[in-house]
Amino acid sequence: MAEANSRRARLHSIIFQADTPAGRRFDTWLIWLILASLVIVLLDSVEHIHTRHAGLLSGLEWVITGLFAAEYLLRLYSSPKPLRYAFSFFGLVDLMAIIPGVVALFYADAQYLLIIRALRLVRVFRIFKLRHYLVQANFLVSALRSSRQKIVVFLLSVSTLVVVFGALMYVIEGPENGFTSIPTSIYWAVVTLTTVGFGDITPKTALGQAVASLVMITGYSIIAVPTGIFSAELANAMRQEGQLDQECPTCRKRSHESAASFCSRCGNPLFPRGGEHEAT
Amino acid sequence: MAEANSRRARLHSIIFQADTPAGRRFDTWLIWLILASLVIVLLDSVEHIHTRHAGLLSGLEWVITGLFAAEYLLRLYSSPKPLRYAFSFFGLVDLMAIIPGVVALFYADAQYLLIIRALRLVRVFRIFKLRHYLVQANFLVSALRSSRQKIVVFLLSVSTLVVVFGALMYVIEGPENGFTSIPTSIYWAVVTLTTVGFGDITPKTALGQAVASLVMITGYSIIAVPTGIFSAELANAMRQEGQLDQECPTCRKRSHESAASFCSRCGNPLFPRGGEHEAT
Amino acid sequence: MAEANSRRARLHSIIFQADTPAGRRFDTWLIWLILASLVIVLLDSVEHIHTRHAGLLSGLEWVITGLFAAEYLLRLYSSPKPLRYAFSFFGLVDLMAIIPGVVALFYADAQYLLIIRALRLVRVFRIFKLRHYLVQANFLVSALRSSRQKIVVFLLSVSTLVVVFGALMYVIEGPENGFTSIPTSIYWAVVTLTTVGFGDITPKTALGQAVASLVMITGYSIIAVPTGIFSAELANAMRQEGQLDQECPTCRKRSHESAASFCSRCGNPLFPRGGEHEAT
Amino acid sequence: MAEANSRRARLHSIIFQADTPAGRRFDTWLIWLILASLVIVLLDSVEHIHTRHAGLLSGLEWVITGLFAAEYLLRLYSSPKPLRYAFSFFGLVDLMAIIPGVVALFYADAQYLLIIRALRLVRVFRIFKLRHYLVQANFLVSALRSSRQKIVVFLLSVSTLVVVFGALMYVIEGPENGFTSIPTSIYWAVVTLTTVGFGDITPKTALGQAVASLVMITGYSIIAVPTGIFSAELANAMRQEGQLDQECPTCRKRSHESAASFCSRCGNPLFPRGGEHEAT
Repeated sequence: MAEANSRRARLHSIIFQADTPAGRRFDTWLIWLILASLVIVLLDSVEHIHTRHAGLLSGLEWVITGLFAAEYLLRLYSSPKPLRYAFSFFGLVDLMAIIPGVVALFYADAQYLLIIRALRLVRVFRIFKLRHYLVQANFLVSALRSSRQKIVVFLLSVSTLVVVFGALMYVIEGPENGFTSIPTSIYWAVVTLTTVGFGDITPKTALGQAVASLVMITGYSIIAVPTGIFSAELANAMRQEGQLDQECPTCRKRSHESAASFCSRCGNPLFPRGGEHEAT
Repeated sequence: MAEANSRRARLHSIIFQADTPAGRRFDTWLIWLILASLVIVLLDSVEHIHTRHAGLLSGLEWVITGLFAAEYLLRLYSSPKPLRYAFSFFGLVDLMAIIPGVVALFYADAQYLLIIRALRLVRVFRIFKLRHYLVQANFLVSALRSSRQKIVVFLLSVSTLVVVFGALMYVIEGPENGFTSIPTSIYWAVVTLTTVGFGDITPKTALGQAVASLVMITGYSIIAVPTGIFSAELANAMRQEGQLDQECPTCRKRSHESAASFCSRCGNPLFPRGGEHEAT
Repeated sequence: MAEANSRRARLHSIIFQADTPAGRRFDTWLIWLILASLVIVLLDSVEHIHTRHAGLLSGLEWVITGLFAAEYLLRLYSSPKPLRYAFSFFGLVDLMAIIPGVVALFYADAQYLLIIRALRLVRVFRIFKLRHYLVQANFLVSALRSSRQKIVVFLLSVSTLVVVFGALMYVIEGPENGFTSIPTSIYWAVVTLTTVGFGDITPKTALGQAVASLVMITGYSIIAVPTGIFSAELANAMRQEGQLDQECPTCRKRSHESAASFCSRCGNPLFPRGGEHEAT
Repeated sequence: MAEANSRRARLHSIIFQADTPAGRRFDTWLIWLILASLVIVLLDSVEHIHTRHAGLLSGLEWVITGLFAAEYLLRLYSSPKPLRYAFSFFGLVDLMAIIPGVVALFYADAQYLLIIRALRLVRVFRIFKLRHYLVQANFLVSALRSSRQKIVVFLLSVSTLVVVFGALMYVIEGPENGFTSIPTSIYWAVVTLTTVGFGDITPKTALGQAVASLVMITGYSIIAVPTGIFSAELANAMRQEGQLDQECPTCRKRSHESAASFCSRCGNPLFPRGGEHEAT
C-alpha cells in the first residue's frame, strides 16, 4: 500500500513535473510524439499521400492514439485528485486528443467519413500540450492580462468601424461589384482594415475607392493602438522590476521610487550621510 | 407637479445613467436591442434571406423602430434641457436611428428603394450608443488627443507621399497596365503604402516594380511613426497615472508615489499641518 | 530707394513669413492654389474628363502657371539674397512647379505629348510647399534623424534578406510558376516581406510555400525593429524634455536627473532644507 | 622569415581590419565587387538578357570568381590561424562564394544546367560579406538577443495558432474551395495571420469568412507583441547607454549622469580620493 503510494508519487513527479531528469525526458518524448501525430494528420489530409499510404498512416495513428490513451490513464492514476485533473484545462485537452481516434474505430462508414475527419482534426489541440514545456510565457501573459481591458475597448472600436464601413461600401458599390451583402461587405472591411487585402473583392467605383483608401489609412494608423498599449504595459512591467529595493532604516518601508533619497512615508533619509547612522 | 418632477428625475437616472440597478438593466436591454436591429439589417441585405423572410424582417424592423422612437421621446421628456440633448452628439445619433425607418413607411416605391435602403443603413450608427456602455475608453482617447498634432503631420506626409508616388506610377506604367488615371494610381499607392495590397492593379514593367518596391519598403518602415508616437504618449500617460499630483512645498517636485507623506527628493512633509514648517 | 527697400522688406515678410495677418493670408491662398492645381492635374489624367473639358482644364492650368511664375519672380525680387533662395530646396521646388507648364506651351506636338505629360506631373512637387505651413514636424524629424543610423542598418538587413529569399524562390519555383527572373523574384520577396501581398505572383510548390511562410513570418516579426527604434528614440526625446530644470544654488549647474536631490557636479543639495540657505 | 611574417601581418590588417586607410579601401572595393557580381547574377537570370549577352556575362563571372578565389587564398595565407578562419562563419561564406563558379567550369552539360544555376545562386551569400562593413548593427543585435526568449515564446504561439486555424479552415472550406490539404491551409493561415493576404486562396463560405475575419483580427492585434517586446528592450538599452556605470560607495545608486562627480541621490562623492571618506 505504501509502496503503491510511493510509486504513484514517483509517477506523478515524472508525468506532471519537469524538474527531474526522468520528468524532463518524459516531456521531451511527449512533445516528439505530439509532433509526430500532427505530421501524420497533416500528411493524411494530402490527397495523393492518403490514397497511397492510407493503411500505414491509420496504423500509426492507432498506435499514437493508444499511447496517448495510456498516458491519460497514467495521469488519472498518478494524480492525487483525479477528478480535478480530469476537469482541468489540460485534462480536457488530453481527453480531446484521444476521443476522435477511438470514435473513428467504430464508425468508419463512408457517409460519416467527413465528420470523423473533422473530429480527428481536434487532435491538433494536442499541440497545446507544448505549453507544459514553456514557463517563460508568464511575463508576456501577465502584460497581456493587465492590458486586457484596453484591448477589449480597442476591439469593440474596430468592430464598430468594420460594421459601419462595411455597410457604407455595400451601399456605394452594391452587389454588382462583388459586395453581395452587408455581411460580405463587413468581411471585406475586415480584410482591408487589418491590411490583409486578399483582393477577392475590390471596389470598382471612384467613390468606393476613396472610401476604401480611408479604411486602409485608418487601419494602417490604428495598428498603433494595440502596439502602444502592449509596449507601454511591458515597459511599465520592466520599470517596476527596477524600483529601488532599499529598506528605510527608520520605518522599514521596502520599495521606493527609483531615485528616491528620502522615504516617502516617514521623510527620513534612506541613505544617512557619511556612514554615521543618526537616530533622527 | 412635484410628483411628475420626481418621476422625470427617476426616468432620467434610469435612461441616462448606469449607476443604479434599473439604469444598468435599461442599458443592457438597449444594447441587445441595438444588436438585434443590426442583425436584422445585415440579414435583410442577404439576397436569399430577403426574398424568403421579407415580411418577418420588415415587421421586426418596425417594432424596433417603434421602440427606439419611444426611447427617444422618453429621453426628450426626462431630460432637464431637452433641446441641449436633442442637439448633442448622442441626441442626433438617436434621431438618426429612427428617421430612416419612419421614412421607409411613406415612400416604398420601387424607384426610391435603393435610396431608402441607404437611409436605413444609417441605422448602423445605433451601434455608437454602445459607447454609453464604455467608460474605459477615456484613457485611450486622451492619449490619442495629446498625440493629435503629431498624427496630423504624419497623415499629411503620407498623403503627399501617396500623391507623388501615384503620379509617378501613372507616368511609368500608364493606362495599358491598369493605372488608368492619376486618381486610380493614387488609390493604388494607398493600397500599397498601407501594405494592404489587393492585387487588382499591379506594376508590370521593371521600373514600375522597382518604384513599387520603394513604396512598399517606405510603407513598411513609416508605420513605425504612428506606433512610436502613440507608444510614447501612452507610456507617458501611464507613468503619470496613479501618481500623487501634489507639489512639494519645499523643492517643488511635482509627482510622488501614490501614498507618499514626505517628498522622496528633499524629505520635507508634502502636507505641512497648519503651515508650521518643522525642522524635522 | 529707401521706399523700394521698405516695400521689398514688406513683401518679404508677407511672402516668406507667416507671423503677420497678411503673411498668413498669403500662405493660406497659396495652399488653396496648390491644391486647385493638383486637382486639375488629377482630373486631366482621367480619360473621359480630359476629352470633354480639355480646353477649360488647360486654360486653368495656364492661369495657375502664370500665378506661380509671378509668385516666383516676387520671391526673387523680395529676397535679400536672390541667388541663395533660387538654389535653396524650396527655390528649386518653386521653379519646378513652373517649368513644365511653360515647356508645354511651345512643344504641343502629339509625339511629345507623353513626355510633356510626365514633366507636368512634376508639378505635384508643389505640394511640398505645404511644408511651409508645418512647423510641428520638427519633433518627429529630429527623432527620425537621431535614429537614422539604426534605420540604415535595418534597411540594409532587409535588402539582404530580400535578395537572398528572392534568389532562393527563383531556384525553387522557377519561371514556370511566375518567378521569371531573379529581379522579379526579389520584387516578389519585397511584396511578401513587407506584408503587402499583391498575389500577382504566388508560390505553387510545397517547398515554395514553406519558404514563403518563412519570409512572411520574418516580415511580420522584424517590423518590430523600426517601430522599436522609433518608439525608443521618441520616448528618449520626451524624457529629456522632462529633466529637472533646477539651478544648483552652489555651482549653478542647470539641468539635472529627473529626481535628483543633490547636484551631480558639486554634491551640494539642490533644495536646502527648511528654507535656510546654507553657505556650504 | 621575419620579413614574410611582417608582410603577413600587414596583409592581415588590410584584409581583415578596416581601421587603416588601406584596409578601408580594400573593404570598399570588396563591396563594389560583391555588388557587381550580384548584378551579374541578377541580369543573367533575365531570359532576354541571358540569350543576348551569355558570353560577356559568363566571362565577367569567371573574372569575379577568380578575384574572390585569390582573396580567399590571401585570407588563408595572412590569417594567423588559417583553419580557424576556414571554419568560421565568414570563412565558410567566402568559400561558398567561389565553389559554384568553379563547379560550373567542369559540368556545363545542358541537363545539369538547372542545378548549376542553383549552385551559382548561392553566390548571393557573398552579400553577407557586407556585414564586414557594418559595425553599427551591434546595438540592434544585442537588443534582439536579450529579447530572444520572449520572441521564441511568441513564435511558438504563432505556430500553434497557424496550425489550429489551418486545420479548422480545411474542415470548414474543404478542397472544393482551394483548401486542398491541411499543409496548404496552414500556408493560407500564415498568409492571413501575417496580414500578407495574397488572395490565391480565399474562403468562400460564410462560416469560413467569419473564421478568416477572426484570424485577421488576431494577426492584426498580436503584431503588438514582438513590437512591444523589442520597443521595451531597446528603450531599456538606450536608458542604460551613455550613463555612468559607477556604484555610489555610500548609497549604492548604480547609474549616474555621464559626467557626475557626486551622487545625485545622497550627495556623497562617487570617487573618494585615497579612500578617505570626507564628511563633506
